[in-house]
Amino acid sequence: MSEREQPQVGIIMGSDSDLPVMKQAAEVLESFGISAEVTVVSAHRTPERLWEYATQARSRDFKVIIAGAGGAAHLPGMVASMTELPVIGVPIQTKTMKGIDSLLSIAQMPPGIPVATMAVNGAKNAGLLAVRMLGLGDSAILDSMHDYQKSLEAEIKIKAEKLEAVGYEDYLKEKGE
Amino acid sequence: MSEREQPQVGIIMGSDSDLPVMKQAAEVLESFGISAEVTVVSAHRTPERLWEYATQARSRDFKVIIAGAGGAAHLPGMVASMTELPVIGVPIQTKTMKGIDSLLSIAQMPPGIPVATMAVNGAKNAGLLAVRMLGLGDSAILDSMHDYQKSLEAEIKIKAEKLEAVGYEDYLKEKGE
Amino acid sequence: MSEREQPQVGIIMGSDSDLPVMKQAAEVLESFGISAEVTVVSAHRTPERLWEYATQARSRDFKVIIAGAGGAAHLPGMVASMTELPVIGVPIQTKTMKGIDSLLSIAQMPPGIPVATMAVNGAKNAGLLAVRMLGLGDSAILDSMHDYQKSLEAEIKIKAEKLEAVGYEDYLKEKGE
Amino acid sequence: MSEREQPQVGIIMGSDSDLPVMKQAAEVLESFGISAEVTVVSAHRTPERLWEYATQARSRDFKVIIAGAGGAAHLPGMVASMTELPVIGVPIQTKTMKGIDSLLSIAQMPPGIPVATMAVNGAKNAGLLAVRMLGLGDSAILDSMHDYQKSLEAEIKIKAEKLEAVGYEDYLKEKGE
Amino acid sequence: MSEREQPQVGIIMGSDSDLPVMKQAAEVLESFGISAEVTVVSAHRTPERLWEYATQARSRDFKVIIAGAGGAAHLPGMVASMTELPVIGVPIQTKTMKGIDSLLSIAQMPPGIPVATMAVNGAKNAGLLAVRMLGLGDSAILDSMHDYQKSLEAEIKIKAEKLEAVGYEDYLKEKGE
Amino acid sequence: MSEREQPQVGIIMGSDSDLPVMKQAAEVLESFGISAEVTVVSAHRTPERLWEYATQARSRDFKVIIAGAGGAAHLPGMVASMTELPVIGVPIQTKTMKGIDSLLSIAQMPPGIPVATMAVNGAKNAGLLAVRMLGLGDSAILDSMHDYQKSLEAEIKIKAEKLEAVGYEDYLKEKGE
Amino acid sequence: MSEREQPQVGIIMGSDSDLPVMKQAAEVLESFGISAEVTVVSAHRTPERLWEYATQARSRDFKVIIAGAGGAAHLPGMVASMTELPVIGVPIQTKTMKGIDSLLSIAQMPPGIPVATMAVNGAKNAGLLAVRMLGLGDSAILDSMHDYQKSLEAEIKIKAEKLEAVGYEDYLKEKGE
Amino acid sequence: MSEREQPQVGIIMGSDSDLPVMKQAAEVLESFGISAEVTVVSAHRTPERLWEYATQARSRDFKVIIAGAGGAAHLPGMVASMTELPVIGVPIQTKTMKGIDSLLSIAQMPPGIPVATMAVNGAKNAGLLAVRMLGLGDSAILDSMHDYQKSLEAEIKIKAEKLEAVGYEDYLKEKGE
Repeated sequence: MSEREQPQVGIIMGSDSDLPVMKQAAEVLESFGISAEVTVVSAHRTPERLWEYATQARSRDFKVIIAGAGGAAHLPGMVASMTELPVIGVPIQTKTMKGIDSLLSIAQMPPGIPVATMAVNGAKNAGLLAVRMLGLGDSAILDSMHDYQKSLEAEIKIKAEKLEAVGYEDYLKEKGE
Repeated sequence: MSEREQPQVGIIMGSDSDLPVMKQAAEVLESFGISAEVTVVSAHRTPERLWEYATQARSRDFKVIIAGAGGAAHLPGMVASMTELPVIGVPIQTKTMKGIDSLLSIAQMPPGIPVATMAVNGAKNAGLLAVRMLGLGDSAILDSMHDYQKSLEAEIKIKAEKLEAVGYEDYLKEKGE
Repeated sequence: MSEREQPQVGIIMGSDSDLPVMKQAAEVLESFGISAEVTVVSAHRTPERLWEYATQARSRDFKVIIAGAGGAAHLPGMVASMTELPVIGVPIQTKTMKGIDSLLSIAQMPPGIPVATMAVNGAKNAGLLAVRMLGLGDSAILDSMHDYQKSLEAEIKIKAEKLEAVGYEDYLKEKGE
Repeated sequence: MSEREQPQVGIIMGSDSDLPVMKQAAEVLESFGISAEVTVVSAHRTPERLWEYATQARSRDFKVIIAGAGGAAHLPGMVASMTELPVIGVPIQTKTMKGIDSLLSIAQMPPGIPVATMAVNGAKNAGLLAVRMLGLGDSAILDSMHDYQKSLEAEIKIKAEKLEAVGYEDYLKEKGE
Repeated sequence: MSEREQPQVGIIMGSDSDLPVMKQAAEVLESFGISAEVTVVSAHRTPERLWEYATQARSRDFKVIIAGAGGAAHLPGMVASMTELPVIGVPIQTKTMKGIDSLLSIAQMPPGIPVATMAVNGAKNAGLLAVRMLGLGDSAILDSMHDYQKSLEAEIKIKAEKLEAVGYEDYLKEKGE
Repeated sequence: MSEREQPQVGIIMGSDSDLPVMKQAAEVLESFGISAEVTVVSAHRTPERLWEYATQARSRDFKVIIAGAGGAAHLPGMVASMTELPVIGVPIQTKTMKGIDSLLSIAQMPPGIPVATMAVNGAKNAGLLAVRMLGLGDSAILDSMHDYQKSLEAEIKIKAEKLEAVGYEDYLKEKGE
Repeated sequence: MSEREQPQVGIIMGSDSDLPVMKQAAEVLESFGISAEVTVVSAHRTPERLWEYATQARSRDFKVIIAGAGGAAHLPGMVASMTELPVIGVPIQTKTMKGIDSLLSIAQMPPGIPVATMAVNGAKNAGLLAVRMLGLGDSAILDSMHDYQKSLEAEIKIKAEKLEAVGYEDYLKEKGE
Repeated sequence: MSEREQPQVGIIMGSDSDLPVMKQAAEVLESFGISAEVTVVSAHRTPERLWEYATQARSRDFKVIIAGAGGAAHLPGMVASMTELPVIGVPIQTKTMKGIDSLLSIAQMPPGIPVATMAVNGAKNAGLLAVRMLGLGDSAILDSMHDYQKSLEAEIKIKAEKLEAVGYEDYLKEKGE
């Protein structure tokens, strides 16, 4: 796969149609200065590639794997069964079941092999959880996470102040709703 | 694995706790004179064994694979991804979700890799579907299936006649309900 | 019905509004060189036609029946009850319940009469499962299935290589997303 | 089937294991002086018997059919497709899905063929609905229904008066809870 | 309410926004020559009107009541509790829950008070069930129902013949899909 | 109904089988020194009693109504439609649907008529919400609620300290688990 | 927060994207002449602000808090745990789960801390419930609620009369449907 | 709280009734030689304690927090909102909803604050995920995880060999089933 400098997080997905969702994991990692490799690995269409990817993940010096999949979403659980690294699963929303199938297929893992399951389409949080994990050995990363959470707080407070100041009718008008 | 004469159907399950359900597949196959090998293969705890089992299934001369699993039930789909043989999936009932998790994890396969999904705990029907498949090339098997269906019919008719003859109160009394 | 050379697979559906989904079964069968007859049989609106179709399926030399239906989807189960052939059921997505009604109505068959249930709208996989079944007696068909699975793998690998080479931003731009 | 005087209501069920629930329909009909025939007809195990039962129901002078079934519950809908009589469907509770499968399989009928769906295990109400239907042409029956509803009311009022008089602690003690 | 000749069927709904669905009940009744009164009665916003409507339904010589409602759909059950007439309930699809809330609120009635529940948005079948009920005392109506069912059958057969004759590609082209 | 001194809260339920759950509302109200009347009112079996109860609730000087019901749980919503008082609904768990039917039947009220919905079997919280409502005009009641919440906190803290002191093994042993 | 005259009801939501729904609570309160403060408080992004808001709510002389949130909707329950005031929770519809996640996250509170749960997107009813609560100590408010309910009734009656007068075809035509 | 040597993992739960499930996390951590503190923190009954626990977690040198909760399960998400550490959430099974409420309340977190969600009652996997996270900075821990996964594999293989050797009838007899 990639021959660039080894990234810390591997982001995989069952199909490139999942990329508009899964790219949010990469973007949030980048914003924390953490490198990620993004590629496609399908549990059902490329089982051999799955095997290679998962069994080599640790020796390739990945620290965390983020795997997104929809429907009968086997990718995160299968990767987790073939590596010792922590695996984060992102259930992708499906047209027919809205993602409850993806969520249960990823979350309901049997005792022995854990997958850190996110919300349906929760790729951004997958990235943020990987950041928190990487912070275990790097206090600077946890400090950045602290700042990030403070920025979320500040954003809400600015909105709240404005809403309180102008009232909800004008607030909505300005937002064009 | 088994060194006995090569059976036609491979029956696997993720845990030996699934055996009380899955043995019904073996029993019904036997009643049709069809040999089966029963063993345990866990997608999550024995991924290497899964790989070997699935990729060798055709060369070992299995004709059909029946796979039972519960929860995030990845076994049937992963076997189907690594063999050309038809794979029948049996969702095993779970304590916490009653089997809806198992059913969706098996049924909602993406286009490309089919799994013939049964009802929750539907191992007997898995055996019967394997019989029907084997009947594609063997008219005698389809004749046996015909007889089997006639026997189901006869069984119901006997009960119906008795129920009509004695009335529902006495019928229930005799059944001890 | 059809007076052409007897096809190997019968594809039926409860309404011609299911055809845009169900045609995928026919298309994938054709790509494997397997002939199929496509028609409409409604369990509820044409019960006599259902009876004739199902009871004559074997004598008409069909090998496999694929039946699609939505809502209270009785067609696949009723056909299975009147033939010895393997029956594949495709739950069609409904407007009001998204297909969970169709899935449960097809999957939850009682012991005795199996239906090979696909994902909601999973007509393509229905065709592929029929191919695998027909491969039981024809190794060339299983070889074709092997090639098909290899082509899926190749398709993913090409996408993966490109994604890894250009990065996810450029990849998405080229796809116009 | 039965050679006794022609009953007005036909009560059928897919299996004699449904009888402890379905007998409640017969009992309530009897309490209104309405005759019923109780028997077993399985859509999947006795399709020919289903055909005969449903197509002859009108000529045998049944007025209403009550059909109970569980899981992929096709019996009520299939009977309705083969008769002009009103058909009442009773979803029987299943072990694995608690009856949501039975309810959706019966209720979600396509336009053209109606089934009057009851609550899960709602056999008593099936009997009461049949009574109301038979009251369409017989005012005395509707008068009896009026009395029945008044008796339900009286029963509640007696309990309410007692509960108000003794208080909830003593009320529960007397009931032994 | 209406001072026209007394119609045989009362069709009510909780809101005039349900009318585009509920009018299908009126239309199908008209096609059988059965008169219906269509109006709005809200269980929650017009409880007094509900009381009057339901308690007077029998004396106004209605034979059947059809009631449509969505969400916490109390209208059909409350009408049924205040009349002896058969009541048919139509669960209206909701924006937020797709109609599963409406279906359960109507179907899960307690023993004593039955409601004949239809599919979500199943107003047409509500009309057809009312026709079947009215046929209890009028064989000509059941004959019309017979003809109706035959017309459904004929419609399907014409489509099936055309589909078989031209093949699915051309069939879909002609339909413009 | 009761001729005792007018209580502040009316607690009603559809059946006396709901009393073991609903009594928890009365008990918690008593612990706050708030009087309650407990009785049975069935929306479906005593519609006239429902009418009287609900339309007289305000003039009888009730302040809050708590209504428990299961299945097609219409009682809370119907009371709310006939009174101006705040109504709290308690969904009672059902055997067949575990209470999801009760919850949706109570919660999904249309705009115009609110019901304060509790958790399934949440009768204790219904009582506590009534207390909070009565506290709107009585600061002493809110002070008691403050003390109650402090007592919950103290209870947890005692358990936490013990658990931390003895460790989880000994803690469980002492509890006999 | 707001330095205007102290409003009686605090309306909060987890995100300003909830405002188009939540403003309905403010609008209905205004129509009853009840003042409300509308602002944003996020349980997850502003936990400190949540703490301050909830613990100060009573001393700031709010009477009722209305809190809207979607997905893992923790805001209403967390506010309820930190105040003695009655808290009304509005589950906001989500894209992926349609709001069943929000509904369960708000409704299924443990014994001890009640939240008055509304329908999904039921902000208008949240306002109306707050009005009813404020009516506990103010008969004029309950009189207004009485008038409001009468106006709902009148609105339905006008529609019903028109519908009965012109018939459903013309009624729909005039509505442009 | 605990004054013992600072443990690496904090395990908390909303009630001591969750301890029989949550102790599995502690046990599996111990088997890897990782110290854990087990205590009770209730989001709803001890909000102040929640605040202190969560905001101090990092400065107390915890590396990972595991939080179990049932129903409207707010504990994991609220802890995650007040710390930078990775938080693992365990949905505890509830009597009324079987745990689907707990699962959705924990998994469906909004973008910004991640919770690593486990299966319902998946406390053992919570422990194992914490081990994998701690392995990020300690290769010896990942080696232990490797050995653990190998031991799971060996366990299955021993069972599989025995099952293949003695056949399923004798295997079940020996297990006493």
